[in-house]
Amino acid sequence: MAEFSAVDLIIKKRSKFELSTEEINWLIGNYTSGVVADEQMSSMAMAILLNGMNRREIKDLTMAMIASGERLDWTGLSKPTVDKHSTGGVGDKITLPLVPLVAVFGAAVPQLGGRGLGHTGGTLDKFEAIAGWNPSLTNQQFFDQLQSVGGAVCGASENIAPADKKLYALRDVTGTVEAIPLITSSIMSKKIAEGTSALVLDVKVGSGAFMKDFDKARELAQGMVRLGIDAGVKTSAMLTDMSTPLGKKIGNALEVEESLEVLAGGGPADVVELTVALATEMLRLVGIENVDVAAALKDGRAMDKWRAMVSAQGGDPDAALPKAKESHTILADADGWLTELDALGLGIASWRLGAGRERKEDDVLLGAGIELHAQKGDRVSKGQPLLTLLTDEPNRFDRALEAIEGKISISAEQPQARKIVLERIYE
Amino acid sequence: MAEFSAVDLIIKKRSKFELSTEEINWLIGNYTSGVVADEQMSSMAMAILLNGMNRREIKDLTMAMIASGERLDWTGLSKPTVDKHSTGGVGDKITLPLVPLVAVFGAAVPQLGGRGLGHTGGTLDKFEAIAGWNPSLTNQQFFDQLQSVGGAVCGASENIAPADKKLYALRDVTGTVEAIPLITSSIMSKKIAEGTSALVLDVKVGSGAFMKDFDKARELAQGMVRLGIDAGVKTSAMLTDMSTPLGKKIGNALEVEESLEVLAGGGPADVVELTVALATEMLRLVGIENVDVAAALKDGRAMDKWRAMVSAQGGDPDAALPKAKESHTILADADGWLTELDALGLGIASWRLGAGRERKEDDVLLGAGIELHAQKGDRVSKGQPLLTLLTDEPNRFDRALEAIEGKISISAEQPQARKIVLERIYE
Repeated sequence: MAEFSAVDLIIKKRSKFELSTEEINWLIGNYTSGVVADEQMSSMAMAILLNGMNRREIKDLTMAMIASGERLDWTGLSKPTVDKHSTGGVGDKITLPLVPLVAVFGAAVPQLGGRGLGHTGGTLDKFEAIAGWNPSLTNQQFFDQLQSVGGAVCGASENIAPADKKLYALRDVTGTVEAIPLITSSIMSKKIAEGTSALVLDVKVGSGAFMKDFDKARELAQGMVRLGIDAGVKTSAMLTDMSTPLGKKIGNALEVEESLEVLAGGGPADVVELTVALATEMLRLVGIENVDVAAALKDGRAMDKWRAMVSAQGGDPDAALPKAKESHTILADADGWLTELDALGLGIASWRLGAGRERKEDDVLLGAGIELHAQKGDRVSKGQPLLTLLTDEPNRFDRALEAIEGKISISAEQPQARKIVLERIYE
Repeated sequence: MAEFSAVDLIIKKRSKFELSTEEINWLIGNYTSGVVADEQMSSMAMAILLNGMNRREIKDLTMAMIASGERLDWTGLSKPTVDKHSTGGVGDKITLPLVPLVAVFGAAVPQLGGRGLGHTGGTLDKFEAIAGWNPSLTNQQFFDQLQSVGGAVCGASENIAPADKKLYALRDVTGTVEAIPLITSSIMSKKIAEGTSALVLDVKVGSGAFMKDFDKARELAQGMVRLGIDAGVKTSAMLTDMSTPLGKKIGNALEVEESLEVLAGGGPADVVELTVALATEMLRLVGIENVDVAAALKDGRAMDKWRAMVSAQGGDPDAALPKAKESHTILADADGWLTELDALGLGIASWRLGAGRERKEDDVLLGAGIELHAQKGDRVSKGQPLLTLLTDEPNRFDRALEAIEGKISISAEQPQARKIVLERIYE
């Protein structure tokens, strides 16, 4: 491998020059091994944040991240692989009904799930509300389940893009989380290392999303789509609304409960709409077109897949879900239209009720969260229940209520109908 | 002290907002104590490099650096204090004749000198070519010598601006040395902590200088002058030529030798001109005007001060200076005018001959360096000696010669006369 100096590469990026493929490989390889020090990588991260990276550099960075660890390989599987990634939202349980739904049509979904941190939830935490469910699969078990069932959700091993894990922890304490090239390569390195042949990105926009701003979200989505394509993965993206929570249930067991409603052919219209839209796009990317995706939710095929998928990982699909012990209901203080039901406020409240973590090592309260009795845009009457806060620890209610303060509005004027899918991004 | 978060402050600077006085004090105080980590300070340094700091922020940063350690105090001294700082050049021995010359006229020069690193020399290394000379003075000895002799050159204690020392070492490995606000505060924090009431900055411009570019050098000079004034120090600057070495001798003992020529009323015209210009400006800043500075070089008063100053620090002004054992002379290969005699090339050659250090912990060869037999602009004849390389270790000649390769030109056309002081900067 060519030899460079970290200081020279930092000065190059600082001075708005491109880093070559060899330079990026050297940097990431030597950062992973500790030759390039944290303080060097952090000034580089700041230079990247402020001066950017071009498409070729982002691809090289991502491939170097992937090369720092293991890349899964689904050669030998008789089905096409496709996955979805969401940038994270409040009440975003879409993965739960989506994976079995896509599997119904003969595609395999090899999802490496994460845990929640902050006000957005994590897929693994939700599945763990199901008694017996095991997030750890060996590569062989993962393969076998994709072959037999078609969907598997597995905790990412330490060996997937370790350079990204190290860099992410550094960015977190050095004010460089928001560097678009680094966000792009961080998300995509894990998804590409997962070995999927196709990927649909659900990029959330709005108060509850990482990207509050539509144009910035679009820029991120475009960058990720280009990067996926450059790395040989069929990739597209949807920009979807995260100004208000998805569905009516927020929290781990609560979101499993709502997912089961959707898989049983019911559930809130917004969750169904987004699940069907994402499933349709995922199937299209792997050449499965002209199928009636929505029908598989109605006729029980998606539910059957769900049960098979949960059982294959040791979960009991019939076990009762954890329930919170305490509840606190908020009533509407006026007649009118629910014009504001802020995703961030509700996300933080749910987090404070125990559905999320303060620190990585914390446990979550599986039954905690929020149940909405009305969604944004609904007509409500004074005195009707608007939402119920749920937790096992009643001392959590006060701080949760603080987070909601001023985040709910009822107005005399009917708002415009909410749009879920705001824009679709192809190459 | 107010409490902040390092990440918040980094994000603020990264987003082009000003940091408040309290924020800067918190940052530097906590960086010095280790609460703010190196990797946080390095992304901050990069954000400062790329987004800049305004005049108030630079002042606050500098005062915080000073507050991290000791600030010398010359209250009680019966003379006004004034110092000079050079940004570093090749053959720049001006401090040696300058300090006694200024002291002749009743001002006190409390200089904290440094050691050479890279191709520019350090004042302490030069004085150490004098047998017996001691760079370590207690504060009381320093005060007494300023009161009795008027000039003292002392190694800076570890306790002068320790935050700057820590930050400088970090900048060196993180590609952030060139941040103008950090250069400004680094230089000035040490000078202000030294307790001088007035300061003249000799900002070098040209190949042998830190600043190769005139406009950048002027920007740096203006920033330092403003900062000095904001900190209550009477400050002005001169931009001076460093395209070619100052004088005809480069290297530690060689520069003492040439300084003695100047103090004896002779020496190269450029060294005399700059010494007189700086002394005149230093004296003007402390209200000593209408004095014939040049006369004190001719009539022995400056030499007497020199002898007193060297003796006061244990040095023997009559001791023989170290001489290099080996020499290699280069001859002119044509008749004509010496139009190019590049400062950087000669500086690197002298460094490689042993006059400078590769690493901080290295020793220097006191007798090593270069003696010029002609200066830029002189008429030379084919076959005459142009310069002599001097060292104790003849295996050093090859790499020194490489550094000079292509850095000397003789032309048929007479060049324009060289200007030493290019511009003067007041507030």
